[in-house]
Amino acid sequence: MNRKDIAINKLKSLGDKIIEDVNQNSVPAIKIPSRGTSNLVYDDEKRYYILGDRYGQRSLGNVKQINKIAQMVYMANFCKDLVKRGKTATLREMYYVSEGWDVDFGDQQESNIVGEDLEVSLGMTREDLGLMPEEDGASVYGNLTVQEDDVEINALKSGKSGYTISPTIDDVEFVAHDVERVIAVETMGMFHRLVQEEAYKKFNTLIVGLKGQAARATRRFLRRVNQELKLPVYICNDGDPWGFHIAMVIISGSAKLAHVNHDLATPNAKFLGVTASDIINYDLPTDPLKDIDVLRLKELSKDPRYHDETWQTEIKKMIKIGKKAEQQSFSKYGLEYVVDTYLPEKLDAM
Amino acid sequence: MNRKDIAINKLKSLGDKIIEDVNQNSVPAIKIPSRGTSNLVYDDEKRYYILGDRYGQRSLGNVKQINKIAQMVYMANFCKDLVKRGKTATLREMYYVSEGWDVDFGDQQESNIVGEDLEVSLGMTREDLGLMPEEDGASVYGNLTVQEDDVEINALKSGKSGYTISPTIDDVEFVAHDVERVIAVETMGMFHRLVQEEAYKKFNTLIVGLKGQAARATRRFLRRVNQELKLPVYICNDGDPWGFHIAMVIISGSAKLAHVNHDLATPNAKFLGVTASDIINYDLPTDPLKDIDVLRLKELSKDPRYHDETWQTEIKKMIKIGKKAEQQSFSKYGLEYVVDTYLPEKLDAM
Repeated sequence: MNRKDIAINKLKSLGDKIIEDVNQNSVPAIKIPSRGTSNLVYDDEKRYYILGDRYGQRSLGNVKQINKIAQMVYMANFCKDLVKRGKTATLREMYYVSEGWDVDFGDQQESNIVGEDLEVSLGMTREDLGLMPEEDGASVYGNLTVQEDDVEINALKSGKSGYTISPTIDDVEFVAHDVERVIAVETMGMFHRLVQEEAYKKFNTLIVGLKGQAARATRRFLRRVNQELKLPVYICNDGDPWGFHIAMVIISGSAKLAHVNHDLATPNAKFLGVTASDIINYDLPTDPLKDIDVLRLKELSKDPRYHDETWQTEIKKMIKIGKKAEQQSFSKYGLEYVVDTYLPEKLDAM
Repeated sequence: MNRKDIAINKLKSLGDKIIEDVNQNSVPAIKIPSRGTSNLVYDDEKRYYILGDRYGQRSLGNVKQINKIAQMVYMANFCKDLVKRGKTATLREMYYVSEGWDVDFGDQQESNIVGEDLEVSLGMTREDLGLMPEEDGASVYGNLTVQEDDVEINALKSGKSGYTISPTIDDVEFVAHDVERVIAVETMGMFHRLVQEEAYKKFNTLIVGLKGQAARATRRFLRRVNQELKLPVYICNDGDPWGFHIAMVIISGSAKLAHVNHDLATPNAKFLGVTASDIINYDLPTDPLKDIDVLRLKELSKDPRYHDETWQTEIKKMIKIGKKAEQQSFSKYGLEYVVDTYLPEKLDAM
């Protein structure tokens, strides 16, 4: 069964359950896994956050919850229709569509929460339900051929800015590739540097330009190339707590999305970015750590996702030297240095 | 002569002028058109801001200016090298590269200003000089074939997120097209809506997803399709002062970039977005104008770029009704409404 059929079935079962309750003369209720912090569990084996087994209940027997259940059922019905017709809508569009329903939403915030309720009850991403984020995912450059409907796209022949991962990434099929790995970088500045210096040839790699915090579509893409194509994924970010965490969210998922991390996290991905050791070894141009950087580093050091020794050492070292550095700072040694010297040395060390 | 040769010549002439001055025993000096507000002129005929004829002078006879001239010459030399080698660098990379120069920059801000000095003295965009912004331009979907080096790309076959306009848009050649117009929209949500509803077929159009304020590469692309391919350009944004101004900067350029508006503005482009009249006629879901919206609308009404009667009427009407509306609010009438009803009616009225 493909993801679409699964989504339609799950959405239907939500309605079936309510009808069943009515037929059995019991008060219809929907179980929703709790996503409060107390139900967040870091799973050491899976290496990402999951939800624990605590549930909340929305019951039609509770006057306060009637509206919420009605909204959820309307939304589920709308989503079922979307998936059936092969369409998608943004959360914003759905909010406006709801103006035509008997139970509309007070504001976008309210409809977003019901969207998350639906995600968490069904254990599927909202993209599977046809609800798309506004923004596209990362840019991809390199010898990967994908198929979207009847169109084949080669990410080496999509222009210098590469192939853009669309929010509908799960409709995309991987047709063929001739690469050994994936290197994701934080900024489009570095993406264009790697393209220009032909890093895709030198390292036989896909180059992925994350554009800061990775979009959900990007995380889904990286997970899929890692799982389906068995390609190792390296994330090469700035040497500061923000760069670290952009990588970590790709690797071990976010706490906020614990209910869909099983579809989004890539626990085998490796951080290949600038470390405190790199700052020292390569004598990089740096900026001093701000108070907020230090605070963030201390937070990270207590986060279970950073519990391994290398992370702990690097975080301590960065706090000690009090400095951070961007990837682009390697251009102190010339524009080519990052591809000719730095990346080969880092990859070798892996 | 192509843009690259022009750039190299202009960069060389900057150095030649200094050598000439020295040979003639006069103190080397560089004339830089002033970009202060008092030298900004709205050109009614061109329909965008240009610089007036006031100049400043940087002279080696002035101790305070020696460093600035040296930085400028170093940067010009770096750019000449970039253009010659067919390379580009981000402003950030150039800042780090300067760490190896005898006259480095105190911070990024300082190097950005020298970059602008170079732009304004040579009358070329910094992209022509090989200095690229970090971010890519808009997404394009529709039957346009372009060539980048030896790669041909069709924007109908680049995936659902379309072809991405790269910062190096001036190296891109338009090979063929089979469209009658260009419709640019503010958000990627609306871009995906138009792609999904096959607006590219229905209106025989290119669809451009601006992603908010249009990047320089996007503005350059829109100007080029308008001038080179003679395609009318329509900009379909949200009905609020910010949506208006995103469109207006595409149409009539920005004041800040008066020195390169001749390369970036598309004075023939038309606003096709949500107006105060649309809000009334289509009974759209709205948000109340905030104080800052009203303030901004009043500013716009005094801006020479908005002096025509339609703009003046619509701005007054919006202040009067006290409401704004997003493009996506049309989904109140169903997801297809914007393509099946609204856009045809707006295009007809044009």
